[in-house]
Amino acid sequence: MHANTNAGAADFPTSLIAGSPHEGFELAIRLSRLGVKAVQPDVEILKRLRPAYASDADSLIASSQVIAIHFQTIAAANDYWSRGGSR
Amino acid sequence: MHANTNAGAADFPTSLIAGSPHEGFELAIRLSRLGVKAVQPDVEILKRLRPAYASDADSLIASSQVIAIHFQTIAAANDYWSRGGSR
Amino acid sequence: MHANTNAGAADFPTSLIAGSPHEGFELAIRLSRLGVKAVQPDVEILKRLRPAYASDADSLIASSQVIAIHFQTIAAANDYWSRGGSR
Amino acid sequence: MHANTNAGAADFPTSLIAGSPHEGFELAIRLSRLGVKAVQPDVEILKRLRPAYASDADSLIASSQVIAIHFQTIAAANDYWSRGGSR
Amino acid sequence: MHANTNAGAADFPTSLIAGSPHEGFELAIRLSRLGVKAVQPDVEILKRLRPAYASDADSLIASSQVIAIHFQTIAAANDYWSRGGSR
Amino acid sequence: MHANTNAGAADFPTSLIAGSPHEGFELAIRLSRLGVKAVQPDVEILKRLRPAYASDADSLIASSQVIAIHFQTIAAANDYWSRGGSR
Repeated sequence: MHANTNAGAADFPTSLIAGSPHEGFELAIRLSRLGVKAVQPDVEILKRLRPAYASDADSLIASSQVIAIHFQTIAAANDYWSRGGSR
Repeated sequence: MHANTNAGAADFPTSLIAGSPHEGFELAIRLSRLGVKAVQPDVEILKRLRPAYASDADSLIASSQVIAIHFQTIAAANDYWSRGGSR
Repeated sequence: MHANTNAGAADFPTSLIAGSPHEGFELAIRLSRLGVKAVQPDVEILKRLRPAYASDADSLIASSQVIAIHFQTIAAANDYWSRGGSR
Repeated sequence: MHANTNAGAADFPTSLIAGSPHEGFELAIRLSRLGVKAVQPDVEILKRLRPAYASDADSLIASSQVIAIHFQTIAAANDYWSRGGSR
Repeated sequence: MHANTNAGAADFPTSLIAGSPHEGFELAIRLSRLGVKAVQPDVEILKRLRPAYASDADSLIASSQVIAIHFQTIAAANDYWSRGGSR
Repeated sequence: MHANTNAGAADFPTSLIAGSPHEGFELAIRLSRLGVKAVQPDVEILKRLRPAYASDADSLIASSQVIAIHFQTIAAANDYWSRGGSR
């Protein structure tokens, strides 16, 4: 894939530290989305694609998988929130 | 994927700690589902999709894979339940 | 995916500790199956799906992948069976 | 997936320790195959499927991915063969 | 897959160390792209493929997943940027 | 998948240690290819498949993913090249 390497600097989190699993999950969702935007930066095209894939079970499961992989990274970064929520 | 970043705060677990592998697996199932809901928050659409994908072997295997990835995270968070069930 | 969160408590292993790689692999197979059952708890539907996907190479490879992910978790839980078979 | 939980005890390696990366890779190949056999134990059906998927690029790439996941597990079990080849 | 083993030496990062999560993500995007170029080094063919897959939701989600896997590696290499940004 | 367990001993790297991220990536590419050859050892068939999948975006992304998984293993084996390039 040819990717736009200047992917959303403004949107990008400055840290992987999250205050709770819920915040970590939100961050995983953002990273998943930023991965898509890196390959297709045209927001209009992304909006046009949305209704179809958001109603397609396999696309939803695949999206959930990308979130799961990023959540794995973020959970590790936060030491699984098991020692007071930060590393 | 454009995702709703306000995904189910009420539903979200406050910790990745689970009392047993079984509870950890339940948590992995919840996280998989929350990933889907982050991309498609409309519960009615999700209900409509359900009969088809829940009867499609490849969708079921893909769902099982997302659960497996989250279970990997949760098992690590709980130190694999090998030293008394908590980290 | 909407998932039944009460997935097979009776069937669920109480520990990820396995006496050998072979037992660990059996456990990985069980977890893969429990992931499928969490999404589709109706055993009759699962039986009906079986002949088709068990004769489809891509479904078999995908199933083998889910087992591989769970085996990764279980092998880590057992410290790879390298120091006498338990952690 | 409904899986045969008595998957090839005779074939199963008794340890994840391998003398070299090459032996570890062979072991990863075996585990990938045992995952398939766990779901479809009928060797005749597997033989019948083989010519088609072994000539399908996407099936080959998917198979290579399952091997890669198992190799990751085995490499970790052998501490990446970096301290004299065993843990 | 037959792959060109002389993949973009000039383009390749000399280190996995990145100053921030954002720089790490950019690096993950580059590695994903270099993986594609290793299999298809002909830039003209890649350019020709781009409009179709960059407008296909499933291809975008799959691309985002490859980025997620590389980001996991890079985040670990940078100790998750949690102790001052370098290991 | 039925796999040839005598996969390219001559081609196989004797170590996962690589002098740089670039060499590690080349090694990941080789391992991905060896995984394919383990399932389809007939080089003529592989050559015949090449033009089609090397011009298919989804096959290229899937190939890039297998490389990413192997690169994760190799990067860990080399301690991410962060302490002087070897473990």
